[in-house]
Amino acid sequence: MAGFHDINAAIIGAGFIGPVHVEGLRRLGVRVKGIAGISKDEAERAAGALGLERAYASVEDLLGDRDVHTVHLASPNRLHHDHAMAALAAGKHVICEKPLALTSTETRALVATAQARPGQIAAVNYNLRFYPLSIHARSLVRSGAIGDVLHVHGSYVQDWLLYPTDFNWRVLKSEGGELRAVGDIGTHWLDLVGFVSGLDVEAVMADLKTVHATRLKPPAGSIETFKGKESGQPVEREPVPIDTEDFGAILLRYKGGARGVLTVSQVTAGRKNCLRYELAGSRKSLYFNSEAPNSLWIGERGEPNRELLRDPSLLDADAARFASYPGGHNEGFPDTFKQLYRAVYTDVLSGKRSEAPFYATFEDGHKEVVLCEAIAKSHREQRWTDVAR
Amino acid sequence: MAGFHDINAAIIGAGFIGPVHVEGLRRLGVRVKGIAGISKDEAERAAGALGLERAYASVEDLLGDRDVHTVHLASPNRLHHDHAMAALAAGKHVICEKPLALTSTETRALVATAQARPGQIAAVNYNLRFYPLSIHARSLVRSGAIGDVLHVHGSYVQDWLLYPTDFNWRVLKSEGGELRAVGDIGTHWLDLVGFVSGLDVEAVMADLKTVHATRLKPPAGSIETFKGKESGQPVEREPVPIDTEDFGAILLRYKGGARGVLTVSQVTAGRKNCLRYELAGSRKSLYFNSEAPNSLWIGERGEPNRELLRDPSLLDADAARFASYPGGHNEGFPDTFKQLYRAVYTDVLSGKRSEAPFYATFEDGHKEVVLCEAIAKSHREQRWTDVAR
Amino acid sequence: MAGFHDINAAIIGAGFIGPVHVEGLRRLGVRVKGIAGISKDEAERAAGALGLERAYASVEDLLGDRDVHTVHLASPNRLHHDHAMAALAAGKHVICEKPLALTSTETRALVATAQARPGQIAAVNYNLRFYPLSIHARSLVRSGAIGDVLHVHGSYVQDWLLYPTDFNWRVLKSEGGELRAVGDIGTHWLDLVGFVSGLDVEAVMADLKTVHATRLKPPAGSIETFKGKESGQPVEREPVPIDTEDFGAILLRYKGGARGVLTVSQVTAGRKNCLRYELAGSRKSLYFNSEAPNSLWIGERGEPNRELLRDPSLLDADAARFASYPGGHNEGFPDTFKQLYRAVYTDVLSGKRSEAPFYATFEDGHKEVVLCEAIAKSHREQRWTDVAR
Amino acid sequence: MAGFHDINAAIIGAGFIGPVHVEGLRRLGVRVKGIAGISKDEAERAAGALGLERAYASVEDLLGDRDVHTVHLASPNRLHHDHAMAALAAGKHVICEKPLALTSTETRALVATAQARPGQIAAVNYNLRFYPLSIHARSLVRSGAIGDVLHVHGSYVQDWLLYPTDFNWRVLKSEGGELRAVGDIGTHWLDLVGFVSGLDVEAVMADLKTVHATRLKPPAGSIETFKGKESGQPVEREPVPIDTEDFGAILLRYKGGARGVLTVSQVTAGRKNCLRYELAGSRKSLYFNSEAPNSLWIGERGEPNRELLRDPSLLDADAARFASYPGGHNEGFPDTFKQLYRAVYTDVLSGKRSEAPFYATFEDGHKEVVLCEAIAKSHREQRWTDVAR
Repeated sequence: MAGFHDINAAIIGAGFIGPVHVEGLRRLGVRVKGIAGISKDEAERAAGALGLERAYASVEDLLGDRDVHTVHLASPNRLHHDHAMAALAAGKHVICEKPLALTSTETRALVATAQARPGQIAAVNYNLRFYPLSIHARSLVRSGAIGDVLHVHGSYVQDWLLYPTDFNWRVLKSEGGELRAVGDIGTHWLDLVGFVSGLDVEAVMADLKTVHATRLKPPAGSIETFKGKESGQPVEREPVPIDTEDFGAILLRYKGGARGVLTVSQVTAGRKNCLRYELAGSRKSLYFNSEAPNSLWIGERGEPNRELLRDPSLLDADAARFASYPGGHNEGFPDTFKQLYRAVYTDVLSGKRSEAPFYATFEDGHKEVVLCEAIAKSHREQRWTDVAR
Repeated sequence: MAGFHDINAAIIGAGFIGPVHVEGLRRLGVRVKGIAGISKDEAERAAGALGLERAYASVEDLLGDRDVHTVHLASPNRLHHDHAMAALAAGKHVICEKPLALTSTETRALVATAQARPGQIAAVNYNLRFYPLSIHARSLVRSGAIGDVLHVHGSYVQDWLLYPTDFNWRVLKSEGGELRAVGDIGTHWLDLVGFVSGLDVEAVMADLKTVHATRLKPPAGSIETFKGKESGQPVEREPVPIDTEDFGAILLRYKGGARGVLTVSQVTAGRKNCLRYELAGSRKSLYFNSEAPNSLWIGERGEPNRELLRDPSLLDADAARFASYPGGHNEGFPDTFKQLYRAVYTDVLSGKRSEAPFYATFEDGHKEVVLCEAIAKSHREQRWTDVAR
Repeated sequence: MAGFHDINAAIIGAGFIGPVHVEGLRRLGVRVKGIAGISKDEAERAAGALGLERAYASVEDLLGDRDVHTVHLASPNRLHHDHAMAALAAGKHVICEKPLALTSTETRALVATAQARPGQIAAVNYNLRFYPLSIHARSLVRSGAIGDVLHVHGSYVQDWLLYPTDFNWRVLKSEGGELRAVGDIGTHWLDLVGFVSGLDVEAVMADLKTVHATRLKPPAGSIETFKGKESGQPVEREPVPIDTEDFGAILLRYKGGARGVLTVSQVTAGRKNCLRYELAGSRKSLYFNSEAPNSLWIGERGEPNRELLRDPSLLDADAARFASYPGGHNEGFPDTFKQLYRAVYTDVLSGKRSEAPFYATFEDGHKEVVLCEAIAKSHREQRWTDVAR
Repeated sequence: MAGFHDINAAIIGAGFIGPVHVEGLRRLGVRVKGIAGISKDEAERAAGALGLERAYASVEDLLGDRDVHTVHLASPNRLHHDHAMAALAAGKHVICEKPLALTSTETRALVATAQARPGQIAAVNYNLRFYPLSIHARSLVRSGAIGDVLHVHGSYVQDWLLYPTDFNWRVLKSEGGELRAVGDIGTHWLDLVGFVSGLDVEAVMADLKTVHATRLKPPAGSIETFKGKESGQPVEREPVPIDTEDFGAILLRYKGGARGVLTVSQVTAGRKNCLRYELAGSRKSLYFNSEAPNSLWIGERGEPNRELLRDPSLLDADAARFASYPGGHNEGFPDTFKQLYRAVYTDVLSGKRSEAPFYATFEDGHKEVVLCEAIAKSHREQRWTDVAR
């Protein structure tokens, strides 16, 4: 294969995020050949809407297509493990939506399988690493410009589950896993801050809270991630007990002594999808807000602070590779998918993982699941909990 | 044709903006079949880089391809007229980069030709209309929520031509036309504010200024829009006299009595590509900044001001159609191209112009060129000048 | 006199701004001995409310008080000339609210009188110079850090006169002078930008607009600057024709070739009192917003932009003298009065003007009035107009 | 006493904050009669600099002055208890800097003493309550507009102790108490959030960290709060072991179930003095940043968010009482002192506490010290700790 244009991708999952993958791939010129859903019908509807050639009858059908080189898993969390295993076994490169799987037993097995197949790329879709300013922030830490990382605090807050009438499969432990706000968005923050800081979490202290112990479920078929709130018609709703958290607060101890503080919430009115971190180093500090992702604030003690705009001419070389547009021509959320796939597909083309890839590997995906298990345990036991390794 | 996926597009022009069109089209699932450049060689390089099937030997070659339905003109400004005429004659739908042409004589002819072929869509690529909050702002004005428009002031400023060593074909009158800062970026502001306010300019008073009367031209082949500043190597440069403006200030009188003030500059350090307008109505006011395009400020006299985020659930129906991602998932500059083509290609599919299209038509493109001629005349004559109709 | 505590001040004028002077003076430890108003009654009410020792029966009475060293003029604009003349004749130092007087004939006479009395300080209350970051901005220009000033654009907009029911003596030409928005707030911008840039205006091109040709005047006694909008009770109102401008747009040519653009409006909903300027230099640019006066943006072409906070440890020595509080302990509008009086009273103590005072002198006040006359003339004649000298 | 002008105040303490009290009082017209310091000499220097009539030889001397009605305690923390007790015993109204004292034993005694003397006002100087938008935020919560408070997260971060060469008496446990970052700035956040939310903390989980275990102490006399960083000259410094925290992270459980998260740091480069909180309610949320204190963000789920400016015409009646200037005329840190004393001195004039005063009482000051003790205990024991009552 000479270029991205020679690679054929296929998608498993036709919900909110599958089409985002399709769009990101097409921007790079990758051919998206087809899609599989929860049924042949769903696949056909999605293929029609997206203009894809193939609507696969099943995951097996898709994996049996010899033309397909890469498989993107955008299925519900609980299916990730089986789909990823099957895709690897079928010889495909795999890009799996986060979380990599529901338990560390599952993710450990996936890591082992991926390591046994070094010619297949195995990535997890932590797209927020691919805001160019995330990569630049990482470079600033690695170069020593920031000094030693002292502490980092921040939050990831949303409002789409504010009301008890907001409903989605993600609120159900059986579908999404034990943790919800932490699992869905908190892990994005944890992965991103780990990526930028280069630090590993050693121990956690968590306090989680379910604000709505009961949510009102609308009839099947009427709900979608981020979309529930847009509906207008009154529908008959069924009360469902909820035991996943709407809010979480987590204290972090990183190896080497740095400290962290993370707040997650899906019930903060007016914050639509807002990840913020403030990283304090012994020389400078950094502040990033995902709702203004074209700017990175660099705090200084003895001179004026910095406002670094996402301008390729001002970014370090690693970051500039992932910025397609000139300064002032804002890039956003969908661009992170394109840039993530740029990194992954470069490795697909070369036939092996680069040494320290910018994208999250299955090892990184495993690390996040282990971390979530420690967070859940800390909350249950109400005490500081070591993160297993 | 049943969907965007059934439409074949081709691009004329392989510089900065052609590939932006390609990317926008692909996101919609439109098939971009091929590209023509200034030579067969350039076309082949571009087709290879973009993964396009066809590298056309010439514009004629491209227009002769019966498979091609739509033609995007991303060639230098001085070629727009001839290319657009030829494309219309060849029965193609045309999406022309702005400005539509160099003179109002040319644009008038293009309007006439387009009107004679109502089955062919003829659009000008004023992409900034397609920030969803631009469309929402327009709806707020049309609904009467803002009251009467009293005045609007703002600016479009950049820094990529700050130094005398910054060079690009756009600085040459022979290539880009008599006006540069006004023509390149000022017209974006004028088109956008006209779109939002619904107002037509009646008279202008302009003051233009060439800061660098001489610029130093690097050897051919080493320069590109927005890219000159990124080069590092010293090169031998040739002094070239410049008579296009780096700065412009324009007073505006709109029909009905509203006033306007516009500042444009390509020599404002630190502003990479920053369009701002503040529109004062008799009830509310609006403020928009293209470097933070996911937020619209709504000024109030008797209650707290508003910060409207680009959240489909909060946008009016017209604007929501052009917002692909949920609130907080920022969209940016490349997304405006996708959304513009969504509007244009919807008309392509229906086989005729919608009645009041959101995209700029050739009539709108003509209006901008007439306005620019009035601006140039006002500057030459140093007085208020009526805008011809 | 050994310190500010040994100086006795008195105030003429008991409206909105007189008490602001009193507060600023007291912060420095200056003794404010008394006040005169439009009547003995008004003076007594004001003295009681402010806790001042003396309520002067008249301006003459005040000027006859041998204990009073400095006189602050906060009377209506049309009285400034006579009061300032009388105060100078009485041997007092004078701090006059802007504008210095209504016509350049008046201000020229005041300048001459002040020059004949070099031992008396004669200042105009352009307080916005005394945001510490204004002084720092001036230092950046003077040091050459900004390079040559190429152009400056900005605005001063408010909303307190948005509705036709908003009324104040300032809307009447007979009380406030020919120009209103330009005279009241535009001159603040013009003085400040002149102070920061060090440039003089050579020619102007103005377009003014009265949005409300009629305003509804409430019964006498019920109105106050900025306060009309706060009233609630319906009152019977009398229609009054208005010929002062609500909006103004002004193109500027500075000596040496720099250009300027200013928009003023008192009918911009949601902007309460918002002065902004963006000054582009050949090396860096500056942006300041008076509604966020603790931060100065410094635009850079080849490195990240700067956000300079008002932190004495980061300011140049001239600016640091006028910053009383550490960084992050925001100062605001009232602090500019304190700092202005710090500068003026330092000269009062030394018994003579410093060589290049930071505060505006009567010469500066004259310059503003001359500029306003050119603006008014330009608007009347609809053409570029030289500023007399 | 008929007005503020009839009240005589005196100050104990001549460091950073004493003069801030003087300035706030003078703005209200209160007469500040004199000051006492750590010696007669220091008092004389301070009285001279501030223009005060009396330099008291000692605290006793000051308390013996029958003319003095109110006493402001701006002495080091460890002296607050004794000075407050003595001032109450002397029949004075007391305004004590925070913390009220070093231990809850001390503060309990002070509360008892104050309660036994209901005619004397006993206040603690938590000035941040007196940003008018803090009071407005409190009104929004109390009115039910925000709904139930679900959680609040935020931080108070500074950079003036970033380097090991930064030194101040506050870093020594013996001078400032066991907690430093939490005690100095964290309690401001805790008091403010309690004031706004109306909630009491039930249990805490804290993690504290001393970044610099050793700091380098300059020679006596050369250091001052916030000022160490401004010095330039090299001085010989003595290493001193430090056991107060530079960083703290605290999880909070409020009575009724709401959750909280607070991060404090005095080593965050570029943040000079930055308190932020984000309070999520079941209907709306609130965000406040003390470095932009003229704006309150109100988050909405189903409509555009709000930006409420500190404009008296837009504030609720409680808040408007404490806003002296019109909208857009920014107020800042020094204004909070003026407004706090406005509240306190109104009670001084009336001769008794108002029923639910806006200012912090000795009871509130006691509550903060109890909370700090729980935080320190939680950190020592590494577990959730109930807050004693």
